[in-house]
Amino acid sequence: MPAGELRFSSPLPNDSTYMVVDDDDEAAWLWTQIKAEARRDAESEPALASYLYSTILSHSSLERSLAFHLGNKLCSSTLLSTLLYDLFLNTFASDRSLCAAAVADLRAARVRDPACVSFAHCLLNYKGFLACQAHRVAHKLWTQARRPLALALHSRISDVFAVDIHPAAKIGKGVLFDHATGVVIGETAVVGNNVSILHHVTLGGTGKACGDRHPKIGDGVLIGAGATILGNVNIGEGAKIGAGSVVLIDVPPRTTAVGNPARLVGGKEKPSKHEECPGESMDHTSFISDWSDYII
Amino acid sequence: MPAGELRFSSPLPNDSTYMVVDDDDEAAWLWTQIKAEARRDAESEPALASYLYSTILSHSSLERSLAFHLGNKLCSSTLLSTLLYDLFLNTFASDRSLCAAAVADLRAARVRDPACVSFAHCLLNYKGFLACQAHRVAHKLWTQARRPLALALHSRISDVFAVDIHPAAKIGKGVLFDHATGVVIGETAVVGNNVSILHHVTLGGTGKACGDRHPKIGDGVLIGAGATILGNVNIGEGAKIGAGSVVLIDVPPRTTAVGNPARLVGGKEKPSKHEECPGESMDHTSFISDWSDYII
Amino acid sequence: MPAGELRFSSPLPNDSTYMVVDDDDEAAWLWTQIKAEARRDAESEPALASYLYSTILSHSSLERSLAFHLGNKLCSSTLLSTLLYDLFLNTFASDRSLCAAAVADLRAARVRDPACVSFAHCLLNYKGFLACQAHRVAHKLWTQARRPLALALHSRISDVFAVDIHPAAKIGKGVLFDHATGVVIGETAVVGNNVSILHHVTLGGTGKACGDRHPKIGDGVLIGAGATILGNVNIGEGAKIGAGSVVLIDVPPRTTAVGNPARLVGGKEKPSKHEECPGESMDHTSFISDWSDYII
Amino acid sequence: MPAGELRFSSPLPNDSTYMVVDDDDEAAWLWTQIKAEARRDAESEPALASYLYSTILSHSSLERSLAFHLGNKLCSSTLLSTLLYDLFLNTFASDRSLCAAAVADLRAARVRDPACVSFAHCLLNYKGFLACQAHRVAHKLWTQARRPLALALHSRISDVFAVDIHPAAKIGKGVLFDHATGVVIGETAVVGNNVSILHHVTLGGTGKACGDRHPKIGDGVLIGAGATILGNVNIGEGAKIGAGSVVLIDVPPRTTAVGNPARLVGGKEKPSKHEECPGESMDHTSFISDWSDYII
Amino acid sequence: MPAGELRFSSPLPNDSTYMVVDDDDEAAWLWTQIKAEARRDAESEPALASYLYSTILSHSSLERSLAFHLGNKLCSSTLLSTLLYDLFLNTFASDRSLCAAAVADLRAARVRDPACVSFAHCLLNYKGFLACQAHRVAHKLWTQARRPLALALHSRISDVFAVDIHPAAKIGKGVLFDHATGVVIGETAVVGNNVSILHHVTLGGTGKACGDRHPKIGDGVLIGAGATILGNVNIGEGAKIGAGSVVLIDVPPRTTAVGNPARLVGGKEKPSKHEECPGESMDHTSFISDWSDYII
Amino acid sequence: MPAGELRFSSPLPNDSTYMVVDDDDEAAWLWTQIKAEARRDAESEPALASYLYSTILSHSSLERSLAFHLGNKLCSSTLLSTLLYDLFLNTFASDRSLCAAAVADLRAARVRDPACVSFAHCLLNYKGFLACQAHRVAHKLWTQARRPLALALHSRISDVFAVDIHPAAKIGKGVLFDHATGVVIGETAVVGNNVSILHHVTLGGTGKACGDRHPKIGDGVLIGAGATILGNVNIGEGAKIGAGSVVLIDVPPRTTAVGNPARLVGGKEKPSKHEECPGESMDHTSFISDWSDYII
Repeated sequence: MPAGELRFSSPLPNDSTYMVVDDDDEAAWLWTQIKAEARRDAESEPALASYLYSTILSHSSLERSLAFHLGNKLCSSTLLSTLLYDLFLNTFASDRSLCAAAVADLRAARVRDPACVSFAHCLLNYKGFLACQAHRVAHKLWTQARRPLALALHSRISDVFAVDIHPAAKIGKGVLFDHATGVVIGETAVVGNNVSILHHVTLGGTGKACGDRHPKIGDGVLIGAGATILGNVNIGEGAKIGAGSVVLIDVPPRTTAVGNPARLVGGKEKPSKHEECPGESMDHTSFISDWSDYII
Repeated sequence: MPAGELRFSSPLPNDSTYMVVDDDDEAAWLWTQIKAEARRDAESEPALASYLYSTILSHSSLERSLAFHLGNKLCSSTLLSTLLYDLFLNTFASDRSLCAAAVADLRAARVRDPACVSFAHCLLNYKGFLACQAHRVAHKLWTQARRPLALALHSRISDVFAVDIHPAAKIGKGVLFDHATGVVIGETAVVGNNVSILHHVTLGGTGKACGDRHPKIGDGVLIGAGATILGNVNIGEGAKIGAGSVVLIDVPPRTTAVGNPARLVGGKEKPSKHEECPGESMDHTSFISDWSDYII
Repeated sequence: MPAGELRFSSPLPNDSTYMVVDDDDEAAWLWTQIKAEARRDAESEPALASYLYSTILSHSSLERSLAFHLGNKLCSSTLLSTLLYDLFLNTFASDRSLCAAAVADLRAARVRDPACVSFAHCLLNYKGFLACQAHRVAHKLWTQARRPLALALHSRISDVFAVDIHPAAKIGKGVLFDHATGVVIGETAVVGNNVSILHHVTLGGTGKACGDRHPKIGDGVLIGAGATILGNVNIGEGAKIGAGSVVLIDVPPRTTAVGNPARLVGGKEKPSKHEECPGESMDHTSFISDWSDYII
Repeated sequence: MPAGELRFSSPLPNDSTYMVVDDDDEAAWLWTQIKAEARRDAESEPALASYLYSTILSHSSLERSLAFHLGNKLCSSTLLSTLLYDLFLNTFASDRSLCAAAVADLRAARVRDPACVSFAHCLLNYKGFLACQAHRVAHKLWTQARRPLALALHSRISDVFAVDIHPAAKIGKGVLFDHATGVVIGETAVVGNNVSILHHVTLGGTGKACGDRHPKIGDGVLIGAGATILGNVNIGEGAKIGAGSVVLIDVPPRTTAVGNPARLVGGKEKPSKHEECPGESMDHTSFISDWSDYII
Repeated sequence: MPAGELRFSSPLPNDSTYMVVDDDDEAAWLWTQIKAEARRDAESEPALASYLYSTILSHSSLERSLAFHLGNKLCSSTLLSTLLYDLFLNTFASDRSLCAAAVADLRAARVRDPACVSFAHCLLNYKGFLACQAHRVAHKLWTQARRPLALALHSRISDVFAVDIHPAAKIGKGVLFDHATGVVIGETAVVGNNVSILHHVTLGGTGKACGDRHPKIGDGVLIGAGATILGNVNIGEGAKIGAGSVVLIDVPPRTTAVGNPARLVGGKEKPSKHEECPGESMDHTSFISDWSDYII
Repeated sequence: MPAGELRFSSPLPNDSTYMVVDDDDEAAWLWTQIKAEARRDAESEPALASYLYSTILSHSSLERSLAFHLGNKLCSSTLLSTLLYDLFLNTFASDRSLCAAAVADLRAARVRDPACVSFAHCLLNYKGFLACQAHRVAHKLWTQARRPLALALHSRISDVFAVDIHPAAKIGKGVLFDHATGVVIGETAVVGNNVSILHHVTLGGTGKACGDRHPKIGDGVLIGAGATILGNVNIGEGAKIGAGSVVLIDVPPRTTAVGNPARLVGGKEKPSKHEECPGESMDHTSFISDWSDYII
């Protein structure tokens, strides 16, 4: 993303400065950007204009656009789009924080993913983004004890996007699910703010009975593709989990765990610490040299 | 699941006691439970009532409900729901063991998965359960030499559920595919009874020509998320395969294999043996301490 | 596949001999085969005849059949099948190499995958084949600077097939995506000819900004299930990547890399070299003995 | 229809001779004819083959074909095709006379309508035929006191075919609804056997409260396009009602009523009588000369 | 309808007494009735329960139910149900008189049509009722100068219900369109309150250019099936138009016009006057004796 | 339509002057107009923009837009939109006169119907226009001996638009089907150029066997709503048929027939002649005064 394109700078690791701005202003500003992007695309590509108008340009707000898009994506012959649209609209209207979280997620994708060419691109096409917003609604329903409906929605998200987040799981803001196919997050998992999670990542249970049994992911964590984190373990703030790792242990803040089974880079006793926030820098591979050394 | 909720106790590892009961009685009892659950949910959540009535409450039996649900889930613009519904109905009617297997699978999910809040929840929402029942029909067609139809159904299951089980593969009863996204099971694979398989598990071939080239999974095995088992190897009864493992070797009964490439916990010569049946206890991580020791 | 069934022999590793034949002749010959297969299946299985006629037998060429099939598979309520059909038809008509690549891919599946019982089976049912052909169209649009449309198509492919290939990625001919669920290929990746890629394979980025940041896969490479290759590394011609490997390094031609993190079989300094072309032999496990030795 | 094409001659006005033949034999014979016609059409027109296979050639009996075709025609987003298919299948199975009536109606269209080129043509394309068969099912439901379902089906028939027959109305066998658009038949109407009714015909009520208030149409009657018959009047056996007539009076057997308001041709006291059975000869206009005389 | 079933008596011809009651109370009372009816039907007919829940029982008000039902009935592949649902919801919310008119129309059907067994039956199944409510929305859009949208909606109503009411036409309250198929009402037509219009009725233009060129129908008028009224003529309050009549002249209040061309019963100079309000009594045929006399 | 809006004047009754202009130029000019209208509407009404883009603005020609619109309107679950789209595209491409006829019909609606506010309005919303264009394609197929396909298309047109024109019937250019619901035109009917036909009009057969048995309608004829013309009669050039008439006789050029049965205004021997071309002036009621006199 070329410098200067975003109105609000985001100098700090956990991207918190723009939170000072009012959420509704932020949403309105972003919505204006998205409509401008969609209008530009509709003009350059008439074959796509119908899609862009129905999904973005005919709507008066980000929530309405999202409710429409998710309703049409997640519907089935037995769960009609009108029913889902209504459900999304009402839930977004009842809790403004859902929209603020969507805004933070859109910014996260735009800032962190070099392949994300516009906010509209993310809103329309990112299954990780869409699955996450639908999950937030399912989670809201879950907290309102509307569990059968939350689980039905969960099932549709898993069918349509191949993203399986239990409606009870708590997901923070500014989260990027990149590629997203195959992500599985269990019932008692917690994911912090500004986390980046690649595809095929599992935050799984231990299989033991009903209690708290899934990982807790701190703010700013980066979890590489195919990583499997099992059990009620803590992944500390700003930690990094290497692709394909199988993590069964706590990972301290700002350290890196890699391998199957995962070990801390630098050793269990005195692991290396990094300064940057990997959830935002998305640096998957800076540990290569360390690792190579470690491996030889 | 609160104690006592299930009519039939299941004390033995391979869950065989309730098999003494007549299959049809068992199915009838379960269907009564499912309808009661669905009715309760329909009353508490009017937005879901239409879905619950169309999929469960309007049907006279588990098979009809399943045939309807699968027909509507798996249909496409070129394979109509009416055609698939008919196919499922007729196949279920022609072979009662398909229904008995579905009953065993529902019980498996309810007993083993703490997130499974009701039988109806599993029937409606578990893509692993639904993919498995559809596979059983495809397998039946395959054994009847209706291969093009079996393969078309296989393709729909893979598209809709991201679960890819070759119609020739043999799957036992009481099998739990938990989360299920990304499961791939090859043509000559065999899966025993009371097995639990997590998501992203591969039972793959060696790539060599047409013969018997896929794994054989014994009764009561547990295969962790993302495990890849390749070639015509034997995973012995009650064995456990760690998440993310890559298994290219036979695994003796009631032992645990972990890692990439997978090694037996306790060593090749004298591996540790466990008593419980991991396919039923779903204990993914009890080997952590052992492993940690092993790893240092 | 029984010997002799294919008109053109393919003795050389990179399967180049039949390229001497005119592409259009090849496509016409293959289309005749496919129609004969479909006609035979329609006769033996009336329940499938409607599907076979609409998808294959009513069409005059492979391109039209593919355009129809992909249009109906990838459409949604906001991207109509007629629009997509038109787009596919026009793109296939504008660039004959797309059809030649489809022909090569069909042959690759038929020759390399023992479970592929006919060309028609692949055309109808292989999500990897279909995702790849749709990707080729998206890639063509990308090169024509029709990026929003390419990205919308990319999104549909990822939703429907759980195959996520960035439209900018370059994919060679004669490529087999076997099972295909969960494949992720990033923006600057390049895949050569006659490559075989199993499911859950990632050709991912390093997360660093916008430059060339994804793997380059040489001709004839075989990448096992669940392998993750990250960064702008070179996987040399005819190399083999073991299932579940995490590769962050260059892999020389005709060598094998396995493990997490991946190491070269035979050692970094003097890795073992194999003679055959693994992308075509699909021998996933020949390195087992070596590895076992290595591991002990 | 070329002479000799039908196996059973039909020399008598009310076409009763072939009823001697067993209904099931008749249905089986007709079904064989229909499949042969459909197969011939599928061969000559590949673009239509998919439709012909799904609707006719993949089915084992006329009832199953009809149940499929009607289920797909009458379904909506809130009344699924699978539900309707099931309803039709079960109702046809429970009452064999429904199939016999369909057979008689197919023969009626084939014999009486010069534009009816084949039985398959009628089965596939005649909205009057299809609406009538669906009505028979709705009527059956009505007699079983399943009135809300009967009325929902009635509503779908009226939406889809613009044919509005109250489910309580009794319709005989061998009835031809030619063109059919706009036909309205009220709750207490009775239509005899071998009647022919053109489009826009109303058999309406008097508006007075709930009693018997709609016309009774005798066997073999012909009712011309746009005729409106109101109130509990009797249209005698073999009578003819001119196009556009408004009939508020009884019409004696084998007489003709024309005009608005309708008068008997030949006068009220001694109306002309005809010999033929107009419901079968379909002679709409033989009264022209008489009428012209009458009119001056 | 059994006496006493309606809470509010309606002794006066133009059914005005219940208008004293507050519109919202009336709507709430009616909605309670409709839900009770739907619940009773859902219990007695499980096959219909899904439809009843999705269309009625899951909604919190008559407007929401209507918006949902119309959105799903009128949608097409290019005008999505979610778009239409939104449009109906917003329009109903913006103008409470639309709901009051729907209430009056439901009462009209229930009181006047002996075949109308419940309010729910009318709401679900009467194409005349549904077309009229959708027209009211189109008319509202027309008055807001949203003409292209009004005309698109008009087109959908004509396609789906075969009822063609120009969005500019003004339709009163308590109007019954019985059967409704084929009704055509032109741009400058006006229909008063408590009018009953049978199917195939045309309120057509004279063909002359753009001015006021369609009929004006007074309160309480009854127009019989197939009647055609052309030009800017006045049909006086409480007048009756016989079925099949072609009316090109003014018809004085409480007189009857019949025939083609229509004449006043009793003669042009001193037509017979009736006391009752035919739009409510629905007495289509009381003029028969008069007419018979007149005709001889 | 304000004077001067059309580029080409149309002073002559049969609207032939603009035929001097090249058909393709005419189509191109009209297409430019339509796109401008659609663009204006899309700007003023975002809710409709998606529909306008998908149906009009994304297409490069009138034929492609029509093929898309008709394909989506006429498709069903067993006759896919892609199949129909293809059929329409190919047929339009094979016979340029189909496009020229569509252009003439669009002009006819725009000039003659005061309610037709734009060409785009007619193209999108007029079921008479759309049914006629689809009929032209069915007729083309009929003349190519592709009768089963022509009849299937005929059936869809009758279901969707309630317009039933036998594919063998010959329809001229510049024809306006106004409102169109309920129109029925038989197999051997012929309709000339610049004819206007209102809704519920029947050009029906006599019921006698297979020969030439339907009406022949001369150029410039106007047929009023609900008129029924039966048998192989000639309606002379520029004649006018009153609404609701039942015509069983020849009608000489430029005379008027009214009533049931229809008589010539002015008497059989020396009927009144009019100068204007009623098919274009659309004057339905100018005969009122004459008739009134005649009737008294």
